[in-house]
Amino acid sequence: MLGGACTYISLAASFFTKPHIVGVVGDDFAQEDVDLLSSRGIDLEGLERVPGKTFFWAGVYSHDMNERETLTTELNVFADFKPKLPESYRTKPYLLLGNIQPSLQKDVRAQMTGLHFAGGDTMNYWISDYRNELLATIAEWDFLLINDSEAKMLSGESNLRRAAAKILDMGPHTLVIKRGEFGAVLFRRKGHFMAPGYLLAEVFDPTGAGDCFAGGFIGYLASRGLEPQDEKIDPAELRRAVIYGSVMGSFCCEKFGVDRFRTLTRAEIDDRYNEFKTCTDF
Amino acid sequence: MLGGACTYISLAASFFTKPHIVGVVGDDFAQEDVDLLSSRGIDLEGLERVPGKTFFWAGVYSHDMNERETLTTELNVFADFKPKLPESYRTKPYLLLGNIQPSLQKDVRAQMTGLHFAGGDTMNYWISDYRNELLATIAEWDFLLINDSEAKMLSGESNLRRAAAKILDMGPHTLVIKRGEFGAVLFRRKGHFMAPGYLLAEVFDPTGAGDCFAGGFIGYLASRGLEPQDEKIDPAELRRAVIYGSVMGSFCCEKFGVDRFRTLTRAEIDDRYNEFKTCTDF
Repeated sequence: MLGGACTYISLAASFFTKPHIVGVVGDDFAQEDVDLLSSRGIDLEGLERVPGKTFFWAGVYSHDMNERETLTTELNVFADFKPKLPESYRTKPYLLLGNIQPSLQKDVRAQMTGLHFAGGDTMNYWISDYRNELLATIAEWDFLLINDSEAKMLSGESNLRRAAAKILDMGPHTLVIKRGEFGAVLFRRKGHFMAPGYLLAEVFDPTGAGDCFAGGFIGYLASRGLEPQDEKIDPAELRRAVIYGSVMGSFCCEKFGVDRFRTLTRAEIDDRYNEFKTCTDF
Repeated sequence: MLGGACTYISLAASFFTKPHIVGVVGDDFAQEDVDLLSSRGIDLEGLERVPGKTFFWAGVYSHDMNERETLTTELNVFADFKPKLPESYRTKPYLLLGNIQPSLQKDVRAQMTGLHFAGGDTMNYWISDYRNELLATIAEWDFLLINDSEAKMLSGESNLRRAAAKILDMGPHTLVIKRGEFGAVLFRRKGHFMAPGYLLAEVFDPTGAGDCFAGGFIGYLASRGLEPQDEKIDPAELRRAVIYGSVMGSFCCEKFGVDRFRTLTRAEIDDRYNEFKTCTDF
């Protein structure tokens, strides 16, 4: 079925802003999947279609949904992907770089001409085997979204607070460390903000939840508008963005794949945002 | 060195109220440890001294402090412990039952004559091997403090929200599920409250942190005064109690054993309470 980081990120962000995506699919990519993305107002000009099969992943989750094992990863047309930005994208102020080879992320960022807030995601493979390339890439980022085990790997620190301090020295002025069902922590030099994970009564399918977090985070910020300098960013907006990210990640888990986003409304999103307030206020 | 649940609970609670403890030690129990408890205003009338050796535990923690392995447990004089409440204790309104055999917890509760708020802790051993006895015991409790894996074991539910709903049907109207470094969740029939774990830059020794949570929780409530009926309990006070519990648990980890409580002040406690506000407000 339809999946992939770009899909989840753009669907989640589409509830806040108009995303413009860059990606590649094969000639097997279904028209109904294109139609879903279009129906959410997502700009597909940067979506390349090339001969061959689309990237494919399959995995199996543990009973409590906290661990997963990859059964299959077929890169297919993704193996030779070199992101090319349409001219119309280059002046956009917000950039979220999905988890691909750091040098490709760096190339994409270099094509942008008026960035206010740029950053992205990475993973253990790039941290361990492409470390220098990754460090050169994130040195130019405003924000990094990363999960807790990867933050520890990247920093060499097993303590989250010390890990965050080291990562903030690598370039990004804003760091979000995702902790799965336990929520996320926003770190900046002047302090941190802790968002709990939403307690779902049933986790149907956690696939894509981290990407939806990213989509909600950047989508909310794009909808509000951020000044290009670190000092001018309102920390309260970043906190709200983390909560909206958590909200989108929680909705993602409620149905299989992207299905929850077929019916989700902005009113449901804001209700859940308010639930986060009710559940954390003291 | 000095340790044990009763020690940690009463030391933590002593920053909020005057605890009266019931327990047993052997003739090897050091006078300087008695003096520490006394210096914190803890009533030791219910502390029995009997011939033999004091309970002893030793363990080793994993590098990230999230797991521990027991090396030695010697019950010693604790093996034959039958708690007897001094007459002066029986009319007290607040009771926290440490983690011992459920039938003993039940006996202690039955000795109390004017309870406003009573409950306690339990563990996997009692849940799996003394289930009926445990269920009869907690049926009479106002609150249960338990960690997440034990909540799942007790309820037979792997989902935390569903586990909590089942446990609230077993008797307690107030349930706190502790999640170690990830904080705690307060569940009541009308909703829940999520407290993050304090992000320590260094976890020196987590031994006793869960007990200090319990001590801060009940100590704060005792200092405020609670009406005896469930309906009259102010949920905001319970939320604050969970935060004070988290605060006391976090201080516990900063030094070896009980050492942090030798110098801790109420001003430091309130500063950290306010830090929890700053770190969670949005």
